[in-house]
Amino acid sequence: MITTDILIIGAGPTGLFAVFEAGLLQLKCHLIDALPQAGGQCSEIYPKKPIYDIPGFPEVLAGDLVDNLMEQIKSFSPGFTLGERAQTIEKQENGSFIVTTNKGTKHQAPVVAIAGGLGSFEPRKPLLENLKKYEDNGIAYIIKDPEVYRDTKVLIAGGGDSALDWSIFLSDVASEVTLVHRRKEFRGALDSVEKVQSLKNQGKIRLITPGEVTALEGDKKLEAVTVRKNTTAVEDMRIQVDHFIPLFGLSPKLGPIADWELEIEKNAIKVNTFDYQTNVPGIYAIGDVNTYPGKLKLILCGFHEATLMCQSAYQRIHPDKKYVMKYTTVGGVIGFDGSKKEAPKAVVKAID
Amino acid sequence: MITTDILIIGAGPTGLFAVFEAGLLQLKCHLIDALPQAGGQCSEIYPKKPIYDIPGFPEVLAGDLVDNLMEQIKSFSPGFTLGERAQTIEKQENGSFIVTTNKGTKHQAPVVAIAGGLGSFEPRKPLLENLKKYEDNGIAYIIKDPEVYRDTKVLIAGGGDSALDWSIFLSDVASEVTLVHRRKEFRGALDSVEKVQSLKNQGKIRLITPGEVTALEGDKKLEAVTVRKNTTAVEDMRIQVDHFIPLFGLSPKLGPIADWELEIEKNAIKVNTFDYQTNVPGIYAIGDVNTYPGKLKLILCGFHEATLMCQSAYQRIHPDKKYVMKYTTVGGVIGFDGSKKEAPKAVVKAID
Repeated sequence: MITTDILIIGAGPTGLFAVFEAGLLQLKCHLIDALPQAGGQCSEIYPKKPIYDIPGFPEVLAGDLVDNLMEQIKSFSPGFTLGERAQTIEKQENGSFIVTTNKGTKHQAPVVAIAGGLGSFEPRKPLLENLKKYEDNGIAYIIKDPEVYRDTKVLIAGGGDSALDWSIFLSDVASEVTLVHRRKEFRGALDSVEKVQSLKNQGKIRLITPGEVTALEGDKKLEAVTVRKNTTAVEDMRIQVDHFIPLFGLSPKLGPIADWELEIEKNAIKVNTFDYQTNVPGIYAIGDVNTYPGKLKLILCGFHEATLMCQSAYQRIHPDKKYVMKYTTVGGVIGFDGSKKEAPKAVVKAID
Repeated sequence: MITTDILIIGAGPTGLFAVFEAGLLQLKCHLIDALPQAGGQCSEIYPKKPIYDIPGFPEVLAGDLVDNLMEQIKSFSPGFTLGERAQTIEKQENGSFIVTTNKGTKHQAPVVAIAGGLGSFEPRKPLLENLKKYEDNGIAYIIKDPEVYRDTKVLIAGGGDSALDWSIFLSDVASEVTLVHRRKEFRGALDSVEKVQSLKNQGKIRLITPGEVTALEGDKKLEAVTVRKNTTAVEDMRIQVDHFIPLFGLSPKLGPIADWELEIEKNAIKVNTFDYQTNVPGIYAIGDVNTYPGKLKLILCGFHEATLMCQSAYQRIHPDKKYVMKYTTVGGVIGFDGSKKEAPKAVVKAID
């Protein structure tokens, strides 16, 4: 059982910044995220896109924003359960909550903050017989650790940035990379499209377009796929593979949280506007996952909501203490790892 | 008469960021501030202090944050009335407001956003006869343009960072710099104290400690001051000066805004939490100047409040239009100066 002060569901920018504000109040955090890395959409969907409306950044790449936030919270040593989806929540007699993931990992905390963004990202899956049989057994929709593919035969399907970028990346790792797309045209960054063209010309990527995977085979694990090539004449090709990676995009789903008996409105969790608490005391919702009058789904609003949530969480966890806010310009930042950052102190010194 | 869409009172970080959010909605802003430059406290009080709780910045100097915000809003070409304090507000028949400063400058706008921080910074003044006679006539409490002091005789009083820093700076500009402090000990950054010691040793700053200015003289403008040196024997020195600059600190006062018939609670303006509007429709209050349940006086909260305020201001200014929020990652930023920033577009391109 993992125990913490604030259990944060969702490790996007809002969830990450909550760790910082909690840390200033000496509260520890643990984050759960269905994606294999922190950063939410910013890391998974658009790490190379510039964001222009983060205050103080005329321009910042989404991936860099996440890196900055990770650096900002480092000294508060947050825990992470990544690649697992928060599934169930149970309220304990002592008022704390136990959250269990789809893989059975259990977490206990007196406060739960849902920072789930638009929901947990579920991959769009191809319609194929026996698909389930090969999931995590030759088929993956998200690449967690590229080393899994070293010296193996990989077939990627898809026509967007993910399919292009992973084909490029794995062409150096796998023994064989085949890229299948139902059109000849790809949609993505110009340099990615050009790079794939060049790797194809060099024979480092086998390209099958227009085409699609129509059948899977293999005894215990995936051994081969059938690709139907749709040129003038239809042609079925049997291709031996160790891995099939369909990259058809991720679509966010509120998922199991929808069953947590929280008030939901327009696919978002209703909260009040003074501490962003839901209808269940002790469960908060911050960032894009919540709704209230005037709500804007902006990262900078999530930062504010995370901050007010932490103050309220502190009162819940320490009902007997009164927290007096200290500005970081005055008090600095004292990490859980023993580090201390603070402004150079003024001296009092005579001039003779 | 200066006219604009949103008249922002206070050019601190919150007021500055409001320009950006307004700009995304194609609304123009004009800012009024009593200080001679933008940035509020961050520029005037602690430009060299690191702030640790701006999301995405593990550490940022207050002055750098202001520079970044100025860069971020540049393309929305905000107007500034600096060094003047918003004094009176009158509601017009057409629903717009006219705000007049203490120097008589008039501004008209359908929306007024008070981003006044802790108030307008009023200098602490020495208790001296005829002080008022020489104000702006040899005596200044805030240095607006250092060039005013070129090749003149300057006497600075004070024992903190401002007195130290300006003595150092003006020692290269003025023909004569005298620094008077009622103690021998100064309180400030170590290197500032040491620099003043060294300039004093070189004869570039005359130091009189412990001492204080006790009298002012001059016909139409200030011509000399009397400094009482409090060593073992009291000694009165008459010193010819062109300028006397008492730097005893600034203290924030809500000031004339307190008389604008807004609901005030604990020296702050009461607002609602969905658009941060005051009890007077069309007048908003954002940042440290406002109060609501759960309020935290943090810069990051001001950013959020500015953002929601702009959405509401848009509805007030364009009641017939519905604004559909576009993410800057998708729509980019289109400046009023014709500039456009946006993410590189995806291409659709065949791979042969």
